[in-house]
Amino acid sequence: MAGPAGFTPVLDAAEVETVLRSMFPVSDVPYRVIEVGEGTLSVSQLCGRREARPGGVVSGPTLMALADASMVMCVVAHIGPEAMAVTTSLKMDFLTMCPLGEVVASVNLLKLSRRTAMGTVSIAAAGSPAPAAFATVTYSIPPTPSGLVNL
Amino acid sequence: MAGPAGFTPVLDAAEVETVLRSMFPVSDVPYRVIEVGEGTLSVSQLCGRREARPGGVVSGPTLMALADASMVMCVVAHIGPEAMAVTTSLKMDFLTMCPLGEVVASVNLLKLSRRTAMGTVSIAAAGSPAPAAFATVTYSIPPTPSGLVNL
Amino acid sequence: MAGPAGFTPVLDAAEVETVLRSMFPVSDVPYRVIEVGEGTLSVSQLCGRREARPGGVVSGPTLMALADASMVMCVVAHIGPEAMAVTTSLKMDFLTMCPLGEVVASVNLLKLSRRTAMGTVSIAAAGSPAPAAFATVTYSIPPTPSGLVNL
Amino acid sequence: MAGPAGFTPVLDAAEVETVLRSMFPVSDVPYRVIEVGEGTLSVSQLCGRREARPGGVVSGPTLMALADASMVMCVVAHIGPEAMAVTTSLKMDFLTMCPLGEVVASVNLLKLSRRTAMGTVSIAAAGSPAPAAFATVTYSIPPTPSGLVNL
Repeated sequence: MAGPAGFTPVLDAAEVETVLRSMFPVSDVPYRVIEVGEGTLSVSQLCGRREARPGGVVSGPTLMALADASMVMCVVAHIGPEAMAVTTSLKMDFLTMCPLGEVVASVNLLKLSRRTAMGTVSIAAAGSPAPAAFATVTYSIPPTPSGLVNL
Repeated sequence: MAGPAGFTPVLDAAEVETVLRSMFPVSDVPYRVIEVGEGTLSVSQLCGRREARPGGVVSGPTLMALADASMVMCVVAHIGPEAMAVTTSLKMDFLTMCPLGEVVASVNLLKLSRRTAMGTVSIAAAGSPAPAAFATVTYSIPPTPSGLVNL
Repeated sequence: MAGPAGFTPVLDAAEVETVLRSMFPVSDVPYRVIEVGEGTLSVSQLCGRREARPGGVVSGPTLMALADASMVMCVVAHIGPEAMAVTTSLKMDFLTMCPLGEVVASVNLLKLSRRTAMGTVSIAAAGSPAPAAFATVTYSIPPTPSGLVNL
Repeated sequence: MAGPAGFTPVLDAAEVETVLRSMFPVSDVPYRVIEVGEGTLSVSQLCGRREARPGGVVSGPTLMALADASMVMCVVAHIGPEAMAVTTSLKMDFLTMCPLGEVVASVNLLKLSRRTAMGTVSIAAAGSPAPAAFATVTYSIPPTPSGLVNL
């Protein structure tokens, strides 16, 4: 689904990954940006033992961290690296167990103004049509760059 | 604040920690149960470099994982170790930056029925009167023990 | 956007409206069902002075009531009239002011199991591509029909 | 529970009601302000046939409207009538059926800054210790008074 209001990205997938890696040590960035579109961005994470909870499925906190990071990357893709967003609210509904392996998060921006950004993140096992989790995320965009992102 | 409906715990803090450690390898349990009360439970986590985001404050995903784990422990404290809850929804509002160091999560059960549990988790730096984050968490309690918890 | 998992409706738009009117006095049903699809349903409401807040835009409670009702109707469309759902949670993000006039709510089911239903509701002024509000709604489907719906 | 950060109200209950009535025709204000405290405010609503859903309990939309209005009044009580807040997000968990009669909403501010306010609203039948519904509500405080409130 395209963003509803013709949002135009200013960075492509590779550029967003470069921003991401400049902010974090490589070992802490388990995310790969798949695609950037108008108001959209998708991210892949390979989930293994480290991301598992007992039962062999992806843990809830892993999915929440993925949603948070994906939304930050989508905002960065549309505003540029200097516009540092701070998460103000994240709500996740856990719909089904998410099996280990490749997991894909798909962001849709619903609002992007000077002060705030809001979007949805749908997370599913790669290739699965049914989302395992669905999040709504709200960001505050500080008046001046603060150097902080909520990852 | 006591739970609103006279919830009675069946495990104490040490017993909840024992359940927690039986489910996870020691290295994965950064949480210490401080106190269990009627419909309440408080948990402490020491947050350092590993839990930091750029800027030197506790990361959002760390706070969400703490809220999720605290709520699971509170449900276990009131139902017993065999009643394995699955997180169905978690919403967190991020209110202020949370400095590194000891962080305390305080759970209040608002509902505990055979099928569902719902509660709030207020998170603050130890000694601070102002919450850094506030979560509402909903759990589903499966009809039969599934051996799964959402940590 | 189609529902992600091939949900199949069992009632059409006219039948859902009939169910709706059987549950409520006509004067209390300001909703018109536009379309029912696989995992989807759209509802129209004409918002005038009664639904306005100062400033001449649609009030927040009007939008929340519309989201709640639309989701109930979507569940009824997919399970049938006897399966009475009870709202367990509704979260709405208000994105832009919604002008008075015809307002359209579009439901997407994300989960529909024997016990629970979860979906999103996007609300916009008729003809506007940008949503004025976006909701996530969770329902509990009682084991036995209770005759209650949360309208 | 007192507000966590020593919020100081600038209006008392009668003054908040005066502001409320100046904004709305009397017939549209079913709320009575019971008490204003530091970061807190409680509101009463008499719920009868008009607020009922089939089954004879208070409807969900009535409870959401009450939560929204209560939070607005609490912000007005602490900032003054000129600071018009706009609801940006409301999440309500419905915990138990709420019987018709007097219903009380209790607001606790968790954050009040120049730009945003966030608080919780617990709603219960008068005299009942168990909440029927619990909401988290976020407001944006516009840079300049806009004359709009989200009622």
